[in-house]
Amino acid sequence: MLGWLRKSIFALRLNNFYNIMPIISIRGNEMPASPIRKLAPLADAAKQRGIHVYHLNIGQPDLPTPRAALDAIRNIDRTVLEYSPSQGYRSYREKLVGYYKKYDINLSADDIIITTGGSEAVLFAFLSCLNPGDEIIVPEPAYANYMAFAISAGAVIRTVTTTIEEGFSLPKVEKFEELINERTKAILICNPNNPTGYLYTRREMNQIRDMVKKYDLYLFSDEVYREFIYTGSPYISACHLEGIEENVVLIDSVSKRYSECGIRIGALITKNKEVRNAVMKFCQARLSPPLIGQIAAEASLDAPEEYTRETYDEYVERRKCLIDGLNRIPGVYSPIPMGAFYTVAKLPVDDSEKFCAWCLSEFNYEGETVMMAPAAGFYTTPGAGRNEVRIAYVLKKEDLVRALFVLRKALEAYPGRVED
Amino acid sequence: MLGWLRKSIFALRLNNFYNIMPIISIRGNEMPASPIRKLAPLADAAKQRGIHVYHLNIGQPDLPTPRAALDAIRNIDRTVLEYSPSQGYRSYREKLVGYYKKYDINLSADDIIITTGGSEAVLFAFLSCLNPGDEIIVPEPAYANYMAFAISAGAVIRTVTTTIEEGFSLPKVEKFEELINERTKAILICNPNNPTGYLYTRREMNQIRDMVKKYDLYLFSDEVYREFIYTGSPYISACHLEGIEENVVLIDSVSKRYSECGIRIGALITKNKEVRNAVMKFCQARLSPPLIGQIAAEASLDAPEEYTRETYDEYVERRKCLIDGLNRIPGVYSPIPMGAFYTVAKLPVDDSEKFCAWCLSEFNYEGETVMMAPAAGFYTTPGAGRNEVRIAYVLKKEDLVRALFVLRKALEAYPGRVED
Repeated sequence: MLGWLRKSIFALRLNNFYNIMPIISIRGNEMPASPIRKLAPLADAAKQRGIHVYHLNIGQPDLPTPRAALDAIRNIDRTVLEYSPSQGYRSYREKLVGYYKKYDINLSADDIIITTGGSEAVLFAFLSCLNPGDEIIVPEPAYANYMAFAISAGAVIRTVTTTIEEGFSLPKVEKFEELINERTKAILICNPNNPTGYLYTRREMNQIRDMVKKYDLYLFSDEVYREFIYTGSPYISACHLEGIEENVVLIDSVSKRYSECGIRIGALITKNKEVRNAVMKFCQARLSPPLIGQIAAEASLDAPEEYTRETYDEYVERRKCLIDGLNRIPGVYSPIPMGAFYTVAKLPVDDSEKFCAWCLSEFNYEGETVMMAPAAGFYTTPGAGRNEVRIAYVLKKEDLVRALFVLRKALEAYPGRVED
Repeated sequence: MLGWLRKSIFALRLNNFYNIMPIISIRGNEMPASPIRKLAPLADAAKQRGIHVYHLNIGQPDLPTPRAALDAIRNIDRTVLEYSPSQGYRSYREKLVGYYKKYDINLSADDIIITTGGSEAVLFAFLSCLNPGDEIIVPEPAYANYMAFAISAGAVIRTVTTTIEEGFSLPKVEKFEELINERTKAILICNPNNPTGYLYTRREMNQIRDMVKKYDLYLFSDEVYREFIYTGSPYISACHLEGIEENVVLIDSVSKRYSECGIRIGALITKNKEVRNAVMKFCQARLSPPLIGQIAAEASLDAPEEYTRETYDEYVERRKCLIDGLNRIPGVYSPIPMGAFYTVAKLPVDDSEKFCAWCLSEFNYEGETVMMAPAAGFYTTPGAGRNEVRIAYVLKKEDLVRALFVLRKALEAYPGRVED
């Protein structure tokens, strides 16, 4: 049918019956606009009107990049900014081996491929491991761009829903097994989680391991927030799971760890040589990861322990400030996130997308307002997360306190307020 | 059939009849290893043995990056290396408008999307404009990574062959029309051309324009070498062609222009708003192009005219040196490239892939050898380019002279020599 249609259109074109512009691709249409970035025009307009916007919507930390990284950039003594190796500089990869060792992740430099941000690592993992139509199971709410990379690779994301009522803990094995079929090829987790801040327990990680083993799946594990775990709970990496070493593809990035989102340096790590060989072909096609970013990332590994501790302590403070503050606003509920620097909170509103847009376009309190990410964009289940927002705690404490106050005022004034 | 097979394998897996590792994707298997980079292990081994290798194989210029770019990096005064906008900094895009104006390409900043190298621009153009199975017609020999990006996007490259005998000029319209069918969606050109150095004439560009118009095709035009045109012939950009403004997607990169391949800054430029909107969704998914690279690229636009002139003059010299030298070696023929910094030369050998490998693994003259890119990797037609190599003239003149001498000695000693 599609073939017939195509041929007919082609015949019409050839006979000059009509003249149209070429059309964009199906996946170009299907690609979601970023739920985090799509309110940006409203925020810009608010700023144009002189309104101060507290950015709770995006994971761009305001904390300084390590001095060692900035110094390395400032002291660059090259005369030619040449290509680096497609897999990234060996010196950097070797140094990373020591970094992972501290987390009991035992690697050789050959297991590590440097990518242009964690984003490219996700895309290359999908392109290398999945065929068009293959399915990936992802607990939702989930980082929205996984969906974008899946569409880019022609893969299909199926979600198991986690709920705010259960603190976003992992559903039972049965919920996963309901989705598993002959196209299921992978499970993807983000741990600690963006957007919920949830940290998977040992029991949950073992549950994932057993499913991965039973069904011969890949386990894509995005662990870019491992530095930011605030409870006494242990960090269980996918790389710690025994018996599935060849199934695990670790996604990493220096963006959040060192507050250097702009340098675009990530990593794809796997013990599976076949996967690495396939990924390397995609790496060679794009020639090399950013040169100066690698220099900065390598130098960041020399940041003193105080850097990590101060950054950590700052997030501990902010988290307490945000979560306590949120739960004190009538009708608002946030679980206590165990890691990362986000929380998903429930608001007493009809539709958080409308509410977030309203905050930017119709509301201000003493010339200020807040920008948040409506949570619906992190779910694929229609209607899910409709009264939830993702809030990032990447602002300094006094700003967070003020933002919470402005949010309370906004909720009081919002015409679409709904009581529980 | 495939469905049945899949289901059977799934049943076997579930019943634990066997336990295998997950397999990599079909496209991961189909992806070509880079023809430019795949001899790298032999070169490394030669260097290990103490042999000096002249790198004629890769387009990595040895000329300095503009001082303005290096200074901008050294003077960076930020404390946080934050995300930049997904479409790139506006200040940079506005400055680029002036750059293109000098080439009679009239743009607004909104027409320009900054990408992570020209590579990402090609990939995003394919992902946004082509569906899996859609075909792109490309004159061959062609930059090998176009094939890799097509496979990534599920698109199919069909080639019209240009020949060294005809100086790599464009074949007649009929040769293109033989390939055009209902899946044909685009023509892709590289102008000036990598690997041949060919520059399309006005007549050829008009021929392309007419086909694009007649069949409603996209025209992807990679023009990263526009600074390097050595004959009096005019540079005809795809953007100069009238009546197909909405069909043209220009691919650009600062890598070669400013000898800054490592910073990974390119651009995708189109007047077609629908295409830009689709491309922007892929851009938002990968968050942002490299921050420091953009700072360097923007500063490079301030490089004095002498920089461009000196770079240009240097390539003019090298081109003369290389082409004269090649044509003086018995049995070797190179057309005179009009642009870029490559030539495709014919060698008196049985198989240039074997010859290039032999140069690295079995030959040396006074402790030196040459590395070239076998041309077969730039063709899709089996057997084409078998006695051709791509040679880049990115080495200084005395090195080129010496490399030519070593190449002559290698051809004299090579056991697979074939006379015309």
